[in-house]
Amino acid sequence: MSSSSSSTVTAQGLPTVLSDLPPIFTALYQSKVTKKLSFEQIASAIGRNEWYTAAIFYGQAKPDKDDLDKLSKALDVPREELETNLGEHFYPNRGVGEWPPKDPVVYRLYEALLVYAHPLKAIIHEKFGDGIMSAIDFYGDVEKVPDPKGDRVKITFNGKFLPYKRW
Amino acid sequence: MSSSSSSTVTAQGLPTVLSDLPPIFTALYQSKVTKKLSFEQIASAIGRNEWYTAAIFYGQAKPDKDDLDKLSKALDVPREELETNLGEHFYPNRGVGEWPPKDPVVYRLYEALLVYAHPLKAIIHEKFGDGIMSAIDFYGDVEKVPDPKGDRVKITFNGKFLPYKRW
Amino acid sequence: MSSSSSSTVTAQGLPTVLSDLPPIFTALYQSKVTKKLSFEQIASAIGRNEWYTAAIFYGQAKPDKDDLDKLSKALDVPREELETNLGEHFYPNRGVGEWPPKDPVVYRLYEALLVYAHPLKAIIHEKFGDGIMSAIDFYGDVEKVPDPKGDRVKITFNGKFLPYKRW
Amino acid sequence: MSSSSSSTVTAQGLPTVLSDLPPIFTALYQSKVTKKLSFEQIASAIGRNEWYTAAIFYGQAKPDKDDLDKLSKALDVPREELETNLGEHFYPNRGVGEWPPKDPVVYRLYEALLVYAHPLKAIIHEKFGDGIMSAIDFYGDVEKVPDPKGDRVKITFNGKFLPYKRW
Amino acid sequence: MSSSSSSTVTAQGLPTVLSDLPPIFTALYQSKVTKKLSFEQIASAIGRNEWYTAAIFYGQAKPDKDDLDKLSKALDVPREELETNLGEHFYPNRGVGEWPPKDPVVYRLYEALLVYAHPLKAIIHEKFGDGIMSAIDFYGDVEKVPDPKGDRVKITFNGKFLPYKRW
Amino acid sequence: MSSSSSSTVTAQGLPTVLSDLPPIFTALYQSKVTKKLSFEQIASAIGRNEWYTAAIFYGQAKPDKDDLDKLSKALDVPREELETNLGEHFYPNRGVGEWPPKDPVVYRLYEALLVYAHPLKAIIHEKFGDGIMSAIDFYGDVEKVPDPKGDRVKITFNGKFLPYKRW
Amino acid sequence: MSSSSSSTVTAQGLPTVLSDLPPIFTALYQSKVTKKLSFEQIASAIGRNEWYTAAIFYGQAKPDKDDLDKLSKALDVPREELETNLGEHFYPNRGVGEWPPKDPVVYRLYEALLVYAHPLKAIIHEKFGDGIMSAIDFYGDVEKVPDPKGDRVKITFNGKFLPYKRW
Amino acid sequence: MSSSSSSTVTAQGLPTVLSDLPPIFTALYQSKVTKKLSFEQIASAIGRNEWYTAAIFYGQAKPDKDDLDKLSKALDVPREELETNLGEHFYPNRGVGEWPPKDPVVYRLYEALLVYAHPLKAIIHEKFGDGIMSAIDFYGDVEKVPDPKGDRVKITFNGKFLPYKRW
Amino acid sequence: MSSSSSSTVTAQGLPTVLSDLPPIFTALYQSKVTKKLSFEQIASAIGRNEWYTAAIFYGQAKPDKDDLDKLSKALDVPREELETNLGEHFYPNRGVGEWPPKDPVVYRLYEALLVYAHPLKAIIHEKFGDGIMSAIDFYGDVEKVPDPKGDRVKITFNGKFLPYKRW
Amino acid sequence: MSSSSSSTVTAQGLPTVLSDLPPIFTALYQSKVTKKLSFEQIASAIGRNEWYTAAIFYGQAKPDKDDLDKLSKALDVPREELETNLGEHFYPNRGVGEWPPKDPVVYRLYEALLVYAHPLKAIIHEKFGDGIMSAIDFYGDVEKVPDPKGDRVKITFNGKFLPYKRW
Repeated sequence: MSSSSSSTVTAQGLPTVLSDLPPIFTALYQSKVTKKLSFEQIASAIGRNEWYTAAIFYGQAKPDKDDLDKLSKALDVPREELETNLGEHFYPNRGVGEWPPKDPVVYRLYEALLVYAHPLKAIIHEKFGDGIMSAIDFYGDVEKVPDPKGDRVKITFNGKFLPYKRW
Repeated sequence: MSSSSSSTVTAQGLPTVLSDLPPIFTALYQSKVTKKLSFEQIASAIGRNEWYTAAIFYGQAKPDKDDLDKLSKALDVPREELETNLGEHFYPNRGVGEWPPKDPVVYRLYEALLVYAHPLKAIIHEKFGDGIMSAIDFYGDVEKVPDPKGDRVKITFNGKFLPYKRW
Repeated sequence: MSSSSSSTVTAQGLPTVLSDLPPIFTALYQSKVTKKLSFEQIASAIGRNEWYTAAIFYGQAKPDKDDLDKLSKALDVPREELETNLGEHFYPNRGVGEWPPKDPVVYRLYEALLVYAHPLKAIIHEKFGDGIMSAIDFYGDVEKVPDPKGDRVKITFNGKFLPYKRW
Repeated sequence: MSSSSSSTVTAQGLPTVLSDLPPIFTALYQSKVTKKLSFEQIASAIGRNEWYTAAIFYGQAKPDKDDLDKLSKALDVPREELETNLGEHFYPNRGVGEWPPKDPVVYRLYEALLVYAHPLKAIIHEKFGDGIMSAIDFYGDVEKVPDPKGDRVKITFNGKFLPYKRW
Repeated sequence: MSSSSSSTVTAQGLPTVLSDLPPIFTALYQSKVTKKLSFEQIASAIGRNEWYTAAIFYGQAKPDKDDLDKLSKALDVPREELETNLGEHFYPNRGVGEWPPKDPVVYRLYEALLVYAHPLKAIIHEKFGDGIMSAIDFYGDVEKVPDPKGDRVKITFNGKFLPYKRW
Repeated sequence: MSSSSSSTVTAQGLPTVLSDLPPIFTALYQSKVTKKLSFEQIASAIGRNEWYTAAIFYGQAKPDKDDLDKLSKALDVPREELETNLGEHFYPNRGVGEWPPKDPVVYRLYEALLVYAHPLKAIIHEKFGDGIMSAIDFYGDVEKVPDPKGDRVKITFNGKFLPYKRW
Repeated sequence: MSSSSSSTVTAQGLPTVLSDLPPIFTALYQSKVTKKLSFEQIASAIGRNEWYTAAIFYGQAKPDKDDLDKLSKALDVPREELETNLGEHFYPNRGVGEWPPKDPVVYRLYEALLVYAHPLKAIIHEKFGDGIMSAIDFYGDVEKVPDPKGDRVKITFNGKFLPYKRW
Repeated sequence: MSSSSSSTVTAQGLPTVLSDLPPIFTALYQSKVTKKLSFEQIASAIGRNEWYTAAIFYGQAKPDKDDLDKLSKALDVPREELETNLGEHFYPNRGVGEWPPKDPVVYRLYEALLVYAHPLKAIIHEKFGDGIMSAIDFYGDVEKVPDPKGDRVKITFNGKFLPYKRW
Repeated sequence: MSSSSSSTVTAQGLPTVLSDLPPIFTALYQSKVTKKLSFEQIASAIGRNEWYTAAIFYGQAKPDKDDLDKLSKALDVPREELETNLGEHFYPNRGVGEWPPKDPVVYRLYEALLVYAHPLKAIIHEKFGDGIMSAIDFYGDVEKVPDPKGDRVKITFNGKFLPYKRW
Repeated sequence: MSSSSSSTVTAQGLPTVLSDLPPIFTALYQSKVTKKLSFEQIASAIGRNEWYTAAIFYGQAKPDKDDLDKLSKALDVPREELETNLGEHFYPNRGVGEWPPKDPVVYRLYEALLVYAHPLKAIIHEKFGDGIMSAIDFYGDVEKVPDPKGDRVKITFNGKFLPYKRW
């Protein structure tokens, strides 16, 4: 996608939460739509996890230089434009969307916490002691598990346990 | 635990969120403390998942008759008292604690959603189409993954994909 | 249920939202639990709709004298106690629970509005003109529709159309 | 409607909640106004329910390819423009308007929940057990019921019952 | 009502918003219920407007000495108890109930403001200039206007116009 | 006012709450300012109540065809422009401004409810039974009552009483 | 007041905001009521400003030893009880009441800030430069200014100007 | 300042809260900056209090015709432009900025109320009886009081006492 | 302090935020008051930092077995009572008080973040890269720095830098 | 950076919170990015602390004339443009970003207060008496402390203690 063509196909079905982000994210998304690439395909092209790749598109992760090289190639967005906007000086302002969420997909995850997070806290303490699961030294995965009664979404959160320091 | 002894050791270090629940939950929790049983042990005694077992203790899941039998035995809480309070007529009023959460353990899960839930929505749609992951036909798991750099908390969400109906 | 026995079996699995209501509602609920009566059975005994009957138990509808007579008989709560508390001078303070709701059953109804209420407003205006569906001259119904793929909940809202007055 | 004419008749009495959506929704709405088509007529043209059709116009439902073909014809909006904006890659960001709602039409529905939703939860549990009514495997209907004392709005919610999984 | 009898008939159908007020208000309300007196009758007995009289019962107005004398007689509440609690040193903490209101009666008044208050501001400025209608040098009235199509509630707000001072 | 001149005198002292409404409301308001017409004069020209007329200008009421004819003449806004924007397909999105209100004129009305609405609910129930005052089958009036101690603002709310239906 | 008598005259017309404070504040307030002392009289007895004295009664200021001596004498509350509760170890948890305030007296002060605080910020900067008026090195005064057109309330805020430090 | 030059020096260090107001306020502010006039100087030129003058600049007070004449001269803003925007038809929409305030200057005033407003209410009632200090028949003053330990900001609020009407 | 004496000196000037915690915290606090021990002294007795020691008293840190031994000795609270309530099974529900805070001491810290936290984020990224300062592997210190112009409060936050993981 | 070049490299990876500020802040930030200057380097060039320097870039501190001179040189932004926008008449509107914060870096600081601020209040009172740490006569520092187990972020808050005045 050249930057000029980008202005003629502005904001095709752009997810609402992206419209609050700087224009580079619109450009990335539009190129993805025009090229009919899935996040899985882009993830494969840049050597990252599919979910993490989507996080880059939502301004929630910081791509490194190598990611920018590969994104530029995969999406045909000029390397320089990526460098200028998402380069070394760029740090994500994390936290996206309205909370509590209204969209049902996002709400169900939120609801799972409303119901199961306090019991989970109890389990974590029993298994690990006083501390938390890191959301920084963290990775996750989304998987489609075929099931004759209806396929299942399997989401994994994997974070380092960080014990509270006593001082 | 006899119900009389229960009144003399009221509310030992009871998690704050339990204090809003009916007294039966205090009784269950106190017995667990007195008997020094972990959720893992209770789960094993009643044949349920550890996380789900904790959810029962936090009033977030409905035990069936068999669960009540086994809970009564494992915790020495009179079967009748359980039946009276958590029997057939009892349905959980789900949703526990204050949101957004202040406790760091719960907050990290919430933060993971703030950052990664919208990207996750995009992945779910690409993998499954228009629909959601159910939080009802849902189960989860918590695992301790030993790691020389620091053990890791691995949490799995597993929900049936429910496609939106067109009408 | 005699009022004395009521004090020994206090608040068996009482729905949390009822705990904010005056004690008469606890008494009604406890009697229903003790007698193992469903709302359907009570509704049939007092000649009201099942959903409406539940609304009386949640302090959301005003029973008339005849309702009190029949409730007294069906639930074995002294007629005088009902008269004293829910008699002529009693008017419901309507609106129950926390909003937005956390409980998933209530939330799904709320979500249906988040998604479909504005489109519904458009339809109502096209079909009826400028006005609203009354929530006062209103009745509803809940039905269980057997379905081999999973039974369905069918809820009907039926309110008089009230046209806006021009002045 | 050609896309050029669309710019000269911008936003005629456009419902406020639509102004937050991408421009394609303005285009759809304007064409509907210009052609003096009701949702009932459009629904009939595309073979969908009237309420569901309005939900498409409010960005709350995902039209399939066939819907886009028929919408294009019915509303004279270029098929390509619809494909580009509401095609395969488009997934609704559901949840529209401000909540609690201020508009009286929407508020009355919300009020019906404030008053009757918790009693309804009790009924659903008694009739179906522990679970919810799906808002995903869900459809509804709006009907005008003539009545000499004033016509009535009859709204039906019909959702699959989903039992809570024990694990 | 003697104060001893008052304790045996506690809180008969007491409006929820009164339960946050000091016990004297419960006593006043209970006596009103026991004696089956309407606000209109009490107002007539103490020589005040019916609406204003109700405001005293809700802790929203300060009775003067003469009011206390007459209230004591009309309701059979000891003069001294009234003096002790609502005497010279008592000043109302005005503002009652939860806002936005959930109860439909109160909400309709609130809704009338949501819709008509800004237009009203414009009218007030055009008729009176820059200033406000006082809510302090204020009185009101509620009237039942018989109408064959349905009786009407007529509420009057009457406040002194207070012009903004320039300085 | 011709639509061309309108663009050169944009938004003269336009009330802030109008700036959220579609441009037609700016046009109406500007014409009113330019022609130095009061709402009283416009009301007289279109045969509506002064307060209701202001409500049309704030997008809170739906003018009928006759209103549009007369507004077009009185304000010199092209009939077609009114039809296009406020015609048959237009339905107000009611509810204007920020709540709780900050502007003192609007706040005083809100405060009158904070203080007197719950007592008013009690009076309405005593006079009419279980039901509400309609805010739909509703009209009102604003009057200037000369008073040597300071003129008074007299506001009347007049709504049909709607009894709750039992079912 | 002896502590025994205090229990028989509990909470006479106690301002609602005091009911959240520890019991010592109820005791102080009740004694003031019983002895019919104004804040002006108590202030004079303890040698403090009237407004500041009231702040002590609302738990918003820390009395020193000398204040406790004098309060004990003036109000007949045992010195030891004051020492135990409001002694050296006591530090106020400042901030009282619900905000935004509903009570009209408190609201008018809040409204004066809504309207005039930002203009005041501009004046302070012009007069003093970059900094703030301290709310800690602060005192105030309330005065009644007789005026034939109606007495006036004159409130003075006097705080040290604190310039922002550059670093 | 001519209106043309105004466009080239747009929004110099314009206070954020002004950016929500109509453009005339930007023009007034820019002229003040360009001419290096303090509010004190402008106040002196128009014969108003310095604080009140700032309130005009923040859209919180309604200037009269004479004020507009003098503002036009003092600030070199065309008289007609002022008349068009702030003339007879203009009435302030009072209430400016975000509340609770974040800016420390404004917050300190707010904090003074958090701490001292309820005690102040008690004092006002003791000194004046049941009523409020008007925020309408109100004026204030800001003074710089030199002090060797650090100059002090002295702010005076002066409002008419308005007794509650009994009815 | 024996547990019996504890009941006679209940809640002496107990900080409001402690009143939401389980009774053991009241007991600890009361003993501290009775024994006139500062946190510095208790910290020294248990070998912990002063600030951390206070955190234990506010239910914000988990004491280990050794801490309980020493606390029991220092405060004369029975070891068993501590074990029962704050023993192995106890895990803090962290997050104390109302936010935004009203108390000025707490607010100033909050304000420092309102003003300086985003600039701080920028500095942290420049110095460390993409990641956060841990609030778990964290300790702090409070120091009194004598200064002739006024002593200074010096607070140190010291947290491990945690780099975001890429996946 | 010349002001013309600035328009061609608009808003490169501009932190979201800066987008609410006047354009001068975008210009400063862009120049910093283009020149690849760290805050440390700029701080060194203008003789200010690194954190404070960042605060200037976020509109949270008022630069003096000398700061403007040096910023102009260091960043190649015309001195006059800085003077016009950030000169004598400019006073920061302090308070930046959304609170509670969503970004994890900012949240961790906020969380440290949720957990440790009330204990800190207790320590400050014990060490200094009744008063606060100033956030005005305040400075801070950020340091990178190398540590083999992971570098640490050390943040210092240093504010003058301000004792509450008694009056």
